[in-house]
Amino acid sequence: MKRNLLFVFTLITLMAQGQTQDESAIKQIFDKALVDGKSYAWLHYLTTEVGARLSGSPGAAAGVEWSRHELESVSDSVWLQPVMVPHWVRGQKEIGRILNTKKSGPIEVNVCALGSSVGTGPAGVSGTVVEVKSFDELKQLGERYLKGKIVFFNRPMDVKSVDAFAAYGGAVEQRGYGPSEAAKYGAIGVIVRSMGLNPEDYPHTGGLRYAPNIPKLPAIAISTNHADRLSKLLKEEKDVQFYFETHCETLPDAPSFNVIGEIKGSEYPEEIIVVGGHLDSWDLAQGAHDDGAGCVQAMEVLRLFKILGIKPKRTIRAVMFMNEENGLRGGIEYAKQAGLKKEKHIAAIESDRGGFTPRGFTMTATDPVKAKIRSWKPLLEPYGLTDFSQEGGGADISPLQPMGVPVLEFLPDSQRYFDYHHTQEDTIDKVSRRELELGAASMTALVYLMDKYGLN
Amino acid sequence: MKRNLLFVFTLITLMAQGQTQDESAIKQIFDKALVDGKSYAWLHYLTTEVGARLSGSPGAAAGVEWSRHELESVSDSVWLQPVMVPHWVRGQKEIGRILNTKKSGPIEVNVCALGSSVGTGPAGVSGTVVEVKSFDELKQLGERYLKGKIVFFNRPMDVKSVDAFAAYGGAVEQRGYGPSEAAKYGAIGVIVRSMGLNPEDYPHTGGLRYAPNIPKLPAIAISTNHADRLSKLLKEEKDVQFYFETHCETLPDAPSFNVIGEIKGSEYPEEIIVVGGHLDSWDLAQGAHDDGAGCVQAMEVLRLFKILGIKPKRTIRAVMFMNEENGLRGGIEYAKQAGLKKEKHIAAIESDRGGFTPRGFTMTATDPVKAKIRSWKPLLEPYGLTDFSQEGGGADISPLQPMGVPVLEFLPDSQRYFDYHHTQEDTIDKVSRRELELGAASMTALVYLMDKYGLN
Repeated sequence: MKRNLLFVFTLITLMAQGQTQDESAIKQIFDKALVDGKSYAWLHYLTTEVGARLSGSPGAAAGVEWSRHELESVSDSVWLQPVMVPHWVRGQKEIGRILNTKKSGPIEVNVCALGSSVGTGPAGVSGTVVEVKSFDELKQLGERYLKGKIVFFNRPMDVKSVDAFAAYGGAVEQRGYGPSEAAKYGAIGVIVRSMGLNPEDYPHTGGLRYAPNIPKLPAIAISTNHADRLSKLLKEEKDVQFYFETHCETLPDAPSFNVIGEIKGSEYPEEIIVVGGHLDSWDLAQGAHDDGAGCVQAMEVLRLFKILGIKPKRTIRAVMFMNEENGLRGGIEYAKQAGLKKEKHIAAIESDRGGFTPRGFTMTATDPVKAKIRSWKPLLEPYGLTDFSQEGGGADISPLQPMGVPVLEFLPDSQRYFDYHHTQEDTIDKVSRRELELGAASMTALVYLMDKYGLN
Repeated sequence: MKRNLLFVFTLITLMAQGQTQDESAIKQIFDKALVDGKSYAWLHYLTTEVGARLSGSPGAAAGVEWSRHELESVSDSVWLQPVMVPHWVRGQKEIGRILNTKKSGPIEVNVCALGSSVGTGPAGVSGTVVEVKSFDELKQLGERYLKGKIVFFNRPMDVKSVDAFAAYGGAVEQRGYGPSEAAKYGAIGVIVRSMGLNPEDYPHTGGLRYAPNIPKLPAIAISTNHADRLSKLLKEEKDVQFYFETHCETLPDAPSFNVIGEIKGSEYPEEIIVVGGHLDSWDLAQGAHDDGAGCVQAMEVLRLFKILGIKPKRTIRAVMFMNEENGLRGGIEYAKQAGLKKEKHIAAIESDRGGFTPRGFTMTATDPVKAKIRSWKPLLEPYGLTDFSQEGGGADISPLQPMGVPVLEFLPDSQRYFDYHHTQEDTIDKVSRRELELGAASMTALVYLMDKYGLN
């Protein structure tokens, strides 16, 4: 009995010491990130010197070279993983115009081609606009009312949703699948209300996915303010004619790379923890929050381990995925190669919700793994990381999930993300240095705990 | 026994229904604020049409008139509460200059007079700079090293503090009391490092408090970037001469007002719940986050009650306090009048930490009152309100606290606040519409619960 008690006391003491050590290590991580972090300087360079990084573009190639170079300074080894990516180019600036109104002459509106859309070419497309809010409504109207028309998908994101990503998820099928849905009924073009939560003058681009064996309609996004104006006109006048002109096209697939840096584990080098973001961005801006932030935060995880002298037991790998925006080819290739090489990934964490103030992590994993991660909550709560309740991992690491890898996503505050997402506004001046740094430290702290305690 | 069981079941059922009713009422409040909120439009007008609102200025008078007018539409009654306020004016733009360096000629630096400072007039002040980090260091140097010198307080805010307000609290005594401390040892002027967490080119103003019977030294803030530059020069060169010129002065006290609107309680009209912000701002910008945001959020509490048809049992009073920045005269007068009229305030809630994403509320109250408020946490957590752990109420309502009134402060995310605080950067474009609206809804939800259940 005495011996048992002694054992219990010893165990409790050791656990308490572990807790204190962890508290102190995590404090060191946050202190270092806030005092001497590199994520903001990196992001400043990536956004202002490299700039936009759409797959297949010179910017994407420059981003690959830049991140390879920077990872060298914080990794044991760095390599490029080849992947062929879609190569879509926007071409010259789009034109959008409401042609006839009773009250006024033509009205120029702010539009941009949706990613992967076919272009109209210099001839443009013109026709009568039919507004719909859903695919059901589209079906009810049918070919009789839609043939030869321009379909205008105008269901707004639900501003009532406190989680802005849930609002996005509830509206984005209009952009992704709307063009092919409208094509089924003989429409000739598609206008989609921008995926934004505010009245704004600038359009949001983003990918569409054409269904096979259905005509590919040219498709544009229209700013939320102009969507409201167009909708108002449609209520006042029966026949509203719209013209748009896009010069985008899809070129042959182009060679590109995932960029990978890693610190080798000292005890279990075969067990890999991935942290990542995606290096590609849309072409309209700098890709600061989407997803330069995630890339530099993943790089900062390695740098903080190095600079703090934390020698991981397991291998920590930072992956800059290519082509999240219009193909996910990088994420798919990464998982494929991991499978071929029989690599053992114990977890993957993505940051692709912007460089905002930390709130927690989402997780898709088994219940015991989730329980283990949640047991670390007391260590992370002092840094604002309180939400470990939601399902989810990032897009780029989603191909790892069917292979049994626990996938997580860094969960920052979501309120401002869709003010900038896929627009000209996604620039470095929208990033708070401290918010970005706190995110990098949050990821590092979680990786520290995963590495130290494993996930079994 | 059966009867007792029946009673218990009935009680549980009623409690569950109350919970559901509350959930639904709070959801209505948030939905309305997000879909149809007025706080952002109000703040847009207050910042861009009214503009800066330093006590005694025409802008402050315009702010009083504007808020009185707007409160009319959402209140049962509105009145102005007279209060005499300090009347400090900045005068023409300040000059700051490093005069002699070995490497280069004079260097112009970005400075501004501290609020309530005496001015130097056109003659300016020039002298050798002595850098210190604390009042202890100042004391150790003493008159021998400080007489006739310009003291440069350069201890930065602690960027390691995750709570930015704690970082502010740990540095701001240099600005508040530094000038009189330096005067004790015969200094002739004071430069204070701006209270900011980032490398920035613009200075932060803010109030100083001269101690009685000690010479009043002219005092300026210098931008964090120029503070670093000056500090570096002081390490390289022994004798660095500095010149500054300020034209500020304190005029006789001016008449002004707290602006008050209220909805009368239907059952306990004598029990008052105050929500408030301060209407005055510094003169350098628009006072968007500090504290236009708090004012429009308090106004929005009344508007949401009205528009949702919620008839409060208790009296809900929105107070736009005057002169928080350089005197607190409005807050002091409000509490004085409440005492004279023997008004019964059951709680006061201020919003003066910016219009950022909600995280919780701080509280200074008795343990039972705190426990009651914390019992509502499950109703508020879905909106990101998770932190009810910290002590504190707002400055303007602090004079109510010694009278036994529970005081609370809305606690939004703090990371960006000190990027803008007391600077030219505190403008409407730094405010996220959704973050502001969520804050207004958070305050309304808490007032709804306080009104319904009381605080006993």
